[in-house]
Amino acid sequence: MKTKTMQIKDNKLYLGSFSLEELADKFGTPLYVYDEVHMRNKISRYVNNFKDDKYDCKIVYATKAFLAPYLVQILKEYGVYADAVSGGDLYLLEQSGYPMNMVVLHGNNKSIAELEMAIEKGVGYIVVDNVSELQDLIELTNKRKTLVKTLFRVNPGVEAHTHTFIQTSLLDSKFGESIFDLSTIDQIMMLYKNSQYVTLDGFHAHIGSQISDGKSFVKLVEVMAKFIKEVEDKYQMKMSTLDLGGGFGIKYLDDDKEINVEEAVKLILDAVHQEFNGLGLSIKNLMIEPGRSIVGDSGITIYRTHRIKHTYAGVEYAFIDGGMPDNIRPSLYQAKYTVINASRVEGEKNVYNIAGKCCESGDMIAKGVEITKPLCDDILCVFSTGAYCYSMSMNYNGLTRPGVIFVNEDKITEAIRKETYEELVKTCNFKF
Amino acid sequence: MKTKTMQIKDNKLYLGSFSLEELADKFGTPLYVYDEVHMRNKISRYVNNFKDDKYDCKIVYATKAFLAPYLVQILKEYGVYADAVSGGDLYLLEQSGYPMNMVVLHGNNKSIAELEMAIEKGVGYIVVDNVSELQDLIELTNKRKTLVKTLFRVNPGVEAHTHTFIQTSLLDSKFGESIFDLSTIDQIMMLYKNSQYVTLDGFHAHIGSQISDGKSFVKLVEVMAKFIKEVEDKYQMKMSTLDLGGGFGIKYLDDDKEINVEEAVKLILDAVHQEFNGLGLSIKNLMIEPGRSIVGDSGITIYRTHRIKHTYAGVEYAFIDGGMPDNIRPSLYQAKYTVINASRVEGEKNVYNIAGKCCESGDMIAKGVEITKPLCDDILCVFSTGAYCYSMSMNYNGLTRPGVIFVNEDKITEAIRKETYEELVKTCNFKF
Repeated sequence: MKTKTMQIKDNKLYLGSFSLEELADKFGTPLYVYDEVHMRNKISRYVNNFKDDKYDCKIVYATKAFLAPYLVQILKEYGVYADAVSGGDLYLLEQSGYPMNMVVLHGNNKSIAELEMAIEKGVGYIVVDNVSELQDLIELTNKRKTLVKTLFRVNPGVEAHTHTFIQTSLLDSKFGESIFDLSTIDQIMMLYKNSQYVTLDGFHAHIGSQISDGKSFVKLVEVMAKFIKEVEDKYQMKMSTLDLGGGFGIKYLDDDKEINVEEAVKLILDAVHQEFNGLGLSIKNLMIEPGRSIVGDSGITIYRTHRIKHTYAGVEYAFIDGGMPDNIRPSLYQAKYTVINASRVEGEKNVYNIAGKCCESGDMIAKGVEITKPLCDDILCVFSTGAYCYSMSMNYNGLTRPGVIFVNEDKITEAIRKETYEELVKTCNFKF
Repeated sequence: MKTKTMQIKDNKLYLGSFSLEELADKFGTPLYVYDEVHMRNKISRYVNNFKDDKYDCKIVYATKAFLAPYLVQILKEYGVYADAVSGGDLYLLEQSGYPMNMVVLHGNNKSIAELEMAIEKGVGYIVVDNVSELQDLIELTNKRKTLVKTLFRVNPGVEAHTHTFIQTSLLDSKFGESIFDLSTIDQIMMLYKNSQYVTLDGFHAHIGSQISDGKSFVKLVEVMAKFIKEVEDKYQMKMSTLDLGGGFGIKYLDDDKEINVEEAVKLILDAVHQEFNGLGLSIKNLMIEPGRSIVGDSGITIYRTHRIKHTYAGVEYAFIDGGMPDNIRPSLYQAKYTVINASRVEGEKNVYNIAGKCCESGDMIAKGVEITKPLCDDILCVFSTGAYCYSMSMNYNGLTRPGVIFVNEDKITEAIRKETYEELVKTCNFKF
């Protein structure tokens, strides 16, 4: 699971010029560490391959996977757009100096305040989720006399399941409106037609997560092309944009299948050419929304293991100084992770449950993984924690949230520092 | 699921003198609201019934369920002890003016820094989890020449499963050392015997959570009495304290069984008298550790529902302005909740999925619940969210964490205020 920038020297795991032990000593543990070289390479692969002579292709990073001002700088550098899903996201992006017209605002239940904030800050697109939101948006823009560009999120009846997809008209997801629900689609189109300030640039559809086979996206392109053609003909409107959503998968375990970026985007572009040309669509802008795929396998978490416990039941535990508050995914999604003893990569191995320090039996980062027997204070490295770990971190059990650093060969950037005890209680009232 | 302090007036739900709508208007939504009257009553029931002429009975509140300075004040008022599980907890308790000698420090993997902090602050008891921790503690106290009182956590081979228990010597929990592991117990007892500064006051055992039948605790008392007797005889040491842990269950749904506090503590005390007398034990202090049971059903979360969505698949959604970041339990534990439309309690009903605003299909607080059809901006109340909701809250999707208020009839105390956007990014580095 090592990235290309990682190597083993003196039996210790290094990232760029630094052993993980050095990083742990310098920044404390637990610590999220991003391999900036790997991340930049991943972004480049998307940017360099998702391009076309005919279409303006935009990579839109789904910030819910992980968001920090330093990452925003990197996105900006590569011209990558950013998905936001709340006022908090908009705030961070703006504070980071990100161009707000490159922001795409998502969400099934944006508040009026968030819609107003998006309009004021001039986000690039609002992805409208439902009829009720569209009505609110029309009302708001009428009051403010401000033009707003939108995409409308539809449920395409295609749902990807890692290696394959199902196709049905009956998906009961909370997101979007079904393309099969003709009366709702009619209501939407009439609202757009009659709105002075809200423009419909096109549609957005998302078919799942951890997709490892680009063919699911081909099916989506087929379905959407047909839908767009029908809508354009029926309502005499032209769509300029199609957003195919995200869900590009990464590896957590060696045997996992990950998406082949180059292959997947080629499949998508080929499908777009074929379907759009065939139907005579005049779409100009294409978007895809990788999130996990850009940051997931660029990130690792390092922990110090202090105690080893042999239970009478025969199970061995390696206890780490973090756990579910910094990575809820094993408990929440039964996610599996690859773990290595970064302080002694090779050596006599044993099987451990890697358990966190929370007073909760479920606080386990990995079950039954084989690593070199840890000595006291060894550094354990958990791979592929770059997505949905920091962004879902919490203060459960009174733990402060770890810091986040980026390593670019011999350069370290502290993107987020570890919380202090003072910050832990910052919103508490102490005077009654 | 209403507490006694709740009533319906003009078809709206009230807590004390306040309609939930008023509270929502004043403090914003989402909002955690504690019924202080109900909570105080629950504490009183424990304090007034878990007492005995022969034994000094201590209620120890498990703070991981929920912790705030205002709650700490209430605990202090009732002479309730407090479990802490981290340096962060110790910090908050001390800042709240709580007597540190009433703190019991738990945790399977306390750091050296946390052990030092506990010694410096003079916590009442450290509950030692394992041999390695005991060794660290002995080393630390030898260096500092400071006396430390401990309990040792054992795994009693009794595991409660809501209505019943299993008994086995092979529990592979990460907590404690097995009472069947005689060589480890021997190692522990010899370490204690030879330690100058670390005293063993007794043992701690915990058998599970959401226990609805006091009989599980009776089994635990039997097992522990026998174990203590064997240890006392073999090592010629006298134990003064027994901590029976927690796990007292509450109702989430009307049909759930909750623990009968009075009955359960009577069962425990009767069992203690019978077993301890029979074996001639000289235990003086008894502890139980309710957490959820004290705060769980005192707390509710109120949300504003803005949009209703009818899906083509036939499922109806009521979208709320919070979700998994303020209550991860439905996704994490498949927890079920009771929901009511607090703005119109009676009226034409319909079945809804109550879905949060996160870009994640799993963000659902309750599935298929029947409530009065909500109008735009109605207040939905989710019951029994007082435990493991705020304490596990997160900033996922860039959402700020809600505030927490306590309502005591006509008095409102803001215990924790809502986070601001500035606080959301407080640990971020913006300059590179």
